Amino acid sequence: MHIIADLYGGDDPQEIIKGAALALNEDAALKITVTGDEEKVRELIIAVGKTKAGKTAAKHLADGRLIILHAPEVITNDDAPVAAIKTKKESSLVKAIDLLLEGGDYAGMFSSGNTGAVLAGGVLKIRRIEGVMRPTMCGIMPTANEGQGVAIADVGANVDCQPAYLGQFARMASIYMQVVYGVERPRVALLSVGTEEKKGDERTLAAHEILKNDPEINFLGNMEARDVLSGNYDIIVSDGFGGNVLLKTVEGMGRFFSRELKGVFKHSPLARLGMLLQIRPLKKLKRKMDYQQFGGAPFLGLKKILIKAHGSCNSTAVLVIIRQIKKMHAAGMVARIEAAVAEQMTNDN
Amino acid sequence: MHIIADLYGGDDPQEIIKGAALALNEDAALKITVTGDEEKVRELIIAVGKTKAGKTAAKHLADGRLIILHAPEVITNDDAPVAAIKTKKESSLVKAIDLLLEGGDYAGMFSSGNTGAVLAGGVLKIRRIEGVMRPTMCGIMPTANEGQGVAIADVGANVDCQPAYLGQFARMASIYMQVVYGVERPRVALLSVGTEEKKGDERTLAAHEILKNDPEINFLGNMEARDVLSGNYDIIVSDGFGGNVLLKTVEGMGRFFSRELKGVFKHSPLARLGMLLQIRPLKKLKRKMDYQQFGGAPFLGLKKILIKAHGSCNSTAVLVIIRQIKKMHAAGMVARIEAAVAEQMTNDN
Repeated sequence: MHIIADLYGGDDPQEIIKGAALALNEDAALKITVTGDEEKVRELIIAVGKTKAGKTAAKHLADGRLIILHAPEVITNDDAPVAAIKTKKESSLVKAIDLLLEGGDYAGMFSSGNTGAVLAGGVLKIRRIEGVMRPTMCGIMPTANEGQGVAIADVGANVDCQPAYLGQFARMASIYMQVVYGVERPRVALLSVGTEEKKGDERTLAAHEILKNDPEINFLGNMEARDVLSGNYDIIVSDGFGGNVLLKTVEGMGRFFSRELKGVFKHSPLARLGMLLQIRPLKKLKRKMDYQQFGGAPFLGLKKILIKAHGSCNSTAVLVIIRQIKKMHAAGMVARIEAAVAEQMTNDN
Repeated sequence: MHIIADLYGGDDPQEIIKGAALALNEDAALKITVTGDEEKVRELIIAVGKTKAGKTAAKHLADGRLIILHAPEVITNDDAPVAAIKTKKESSLVKAIDLLLEGGDYAGMFSSGNTGAVLAGGVLKIRRIEGVMRPTMCGIMPTANEGQGVAIADVGANVDCQPAYLGQFARMASIYMQVVYGVERPRVALLSVGTEEKKGDERTLAAHEILKNDPEINFLGNMEARDVLSGNYDIIVSDGFGGNVLLKTVEGMGRFFSRELKGVFKHSPLARLGMLLQIRPLKKLKRKMDYQQFGGAPFLGLKKILIKAHGSCNSTAVLVIIRQIKKMHAAGMVARIEAAVAEQMTNDN
C-alpha cells in the first residue's frame, strides 16, 4: 500500500516526516510519497536526523519506501482555494492529488494545508462519488470517555446546506465510524436548539424527518450543543455553519481553560506546588483531551481517500492519519459510501 | 419604581425572593410585585425567614414594598408556549405580563420560567415595537476579562432569520450594552466560519453588508466561535440557531471542565492537597466565570422591558436583573430602540 503526504502548507513539515517514519516502521508493506521541493525535503530529513524518527526517515529514503515527489510550489493560507488549485500546478498539494489520481497502489492522501484548497482540489480534481450531493468534511473530537471520539459532519465544507445533504452526511459518517473506529451501529444525533423533535430551524426540522425515516441510520434524535462531549453520540450531523461553530467553540474553550488553568498554577509558589501534586491526573486529562490522537478530518463522498490534517498536526496525528487511510482503504470505504448513497437515493424514489 | 417578578416556572422561587429582598434593601424607592399562589408565596417567605434576606422579605411584605399578586397556575417547561399563554390566564407568568401592561409605575418584569412561553407572552401580549421585525433574546456571558461580558444576539428566539433581522439585533443590542453596561461604542462582530469578509453562508454574507454599511454600528467584521470569550467584542450578532449553538457549547464546556477539574482534585489525597494550595486563584477563576453576575437575557424589541432569567438563577442574578431593569427604564431603552429602528429603516429607504 502506498500513501501520499502533502508536506507543505501546514505549520511544521518536520512533524509529517516524523509521523511518516513512525508509520513506515510499524508496517513493512507500506510506502509513503511526500510532495515538496526535493532539495528542501532532503534538508528537512537531515534536520530531523538526530531524532530516532529522523534516522528512520533517512533509512527509508535510502531503501525506497519513503519517496520524494518534487513539487516546488506551495499553496498558502492566503491563496484563494479554487484559483490556487487551477494555477499552482507545481504545488505540493496539486502534485499529491495528481499522483493519487494515477491509481495503482495509491490508497489515499492527506494534507495539513489550506482547508479550502484541499476541499477545492478534492471536488475539482478527485471529484464526487456518483450521487453525492456534497462531500462532507468530518471532524472528530475527544469526548468525556477517554479514547472515544465524536464525529461532526459537516464542520465547514458546506455552509449552505439543503436538508437532503444532511441525510447523506449521516450515512457517509456512519460508514466512516464503522470502518475507522469499529463502531458497529454509530449513534447519530442532529444538532439543534433543543432535544425535542419539533425544535429547530426549517432545515433542521426537515433533516430530522429524513434521518428518522432512514432505516440505515441509528438516529437518536436532536441534541443540544452543550452535550457535544458527553460521549452519548458517535456522530453529530449539522450544516457546515453550525458544525463549524460547534467545533471552533470547543477548540476555543479548550484553549481558554488551558490558559486559565496555567494562570491558576502561576498565581503563587504554593499554587505551583499544588500543580506538582496533581501532575498525574493533569497529564491524564491532557491526554484525554488531545485531539491529535484522532488524526484528521476526512472529506467523505469523494472518489479517493482525502484527509485534512490540522495545520498544527504533530507526528502522532500523522501516524494516526496514515493508519486511518489504511483502514479506509482496506475496508473499501469509497465503494461502501457509493453503495450507501445509491441505496438511499433508491429509497427516496 | 415598581418591578414585577414571575416567581414560578424556574428551579427555585426562594432565590427570587432572596434576590428581591436584596434589591429592596439597596433602593428605598423600589417596589416589587411577585406573582404566584399567594398562600405558597407566604409559606416561601416564612421558609426563607431564617436567612437575613428572608427576614427582609417578611419586613417588606409587611411595609407594602413587597407585594404578592395571586396567580394559582404555573406554566411548566412541558407546556406548549403559545397555548400556555392563551389558556393559562391565571399563571404566574401571564398575570405578571398583564400587570406590566397596566402601565403606571411598572418598569419591567422578569421570569425564570419556560423560555418559549416568556417569548410568546412578549410577542403576543407585550408586542413588538413598531418596525421591529423580530425581538431578539440577547444572552450575556463572561469573558477572559473579569467583569466584562459579551452579549450574543440572538441566542435562540429566532432560529430562521433574514439578514435584515441581524442588522436590527446589532442596533438593539448596542443600545442595551450602552444602557446597562455603559459601553459607549459597543464593538459588534458577526459570527461566521472565518474572519474574512467573504467567509460565511448566504445569510451571513448579506448580514455582513448590512452591518458594514450601518454608520450607527461599531462593526469589527466577522468573528470565529473560538474567540467568543476573548473579550475582543461586546456584541456577537448571529441568527438564533448559531447563537444558541455558541451559547450552549460555552455552557457545556464550562460544566465539562468544572467536572474534569473535580476529577483531578479527587484523584488522590495529594491532588486534593494541591487544590487546597490553589484555593485562592481557583475561587477567582470561578468568580470570573460565574454567569450569574451578568443577570439575565433581555428580549429586545418589545414595548416593555422583559428579561428571561436562567432557570437556575440565584439571588445574585436576581439582584443584578433588577438593577438592569432599573437602568433600562431610567435610560428610556424602549424609546431609544424605537428611535434607532425607525432611523435604520429610513436609511434603508
